[in-house]
Amino acid sequence: MLKHSPIDDSFRALAEPTRRALIERLTQGPASVSDLAKPFAMTLAAVVQHLQVLEAGGFIRSEKIGRVRTCRLEQGGFAPLANWIAARRMLMERRFDRLGVLLAEEEAAEQVSRSAAKPKKQRRRRAKE
Amino acid sequence: MLKHSPIDDSFRALAEPTRRALIERLTQGPASVSDLAKPFAMTLAAVVQHLQVLEAGGFIRSEKIGRVRTCRLEQGGFAPLANWIAARRMLMERRFDRLGVLLAEEEAAEQVSRSAAKPKKQRRRRAKE
Repeated sequence: MLKHSPIDDSFRALAEPTRRALIERLTQGPASVSDLAKPFAMTLAAVVQHLQVLEAGGFIRSEKIGRVRTCRLEQGGFAPLANWIAARRMLMERRFDRLGVLLAEEEAAEQVSRSAAKPKKQRRRRAKE
Repeated sequence: MLKHSPIDDSFRALAEPTRRALIERLTQGPASVSDLAKPFAMTLAAVVQHLQVLEAGGFIRSEKIGRVRTCRLEQGGFAPLANWIAARRMLMERRFDRLGVLLAEEEAAEQVSRSAAKPKKQRRRRAKE
């Protein structure tokens, strides 16, 4: 079994529509927990739990001033996931590029062998005539 | 409660170190299920289950020829996640840019009011002399 790593929590945090909607709302600016909870048909406690998951995943941070807890997006919070995905896409595309080169080489070799085969056929035909 | 969407499965699929390691292996090229399972200290059934999650998430596809099931990365499999993240980052950065502009404007206004205040002080000083 491989070890659990922080990136697991980040991916898991985004695997839930309410949490993605909370991030969506926070792209417009910081908001209090009660304002964030308003559009959702769930208890405040459930929203708080979702916010805690987002905070553990490094996407938001929250600050309590007096009785109000305000949440905001963490700058650079998406970087670990975006970087992980970008690196794998690059490896994948490099492989597809290599495959493309191999196919092109194969096709070129085939054309060469076809054009090398042609005179032979002509020679044979001439020999028959 | 918001509706579950396919992107939930994609994020959840990557939230597990074994599944990310399987993707890592497949960036090098297609592989049979038994070859993919070799480096992991788990049953073949457990690896098959992880591969099914990756297939449901749109990251890989598999094909059975005879008795061998071969898996390969799905081209464009990362696109939905990468696009979702990129769009939120753009919104976020746009907001930080706007904040930057506001702060710069505020600073400029402060400098204007400071330089407007200076002559006043000089006038006062002159009046005292």
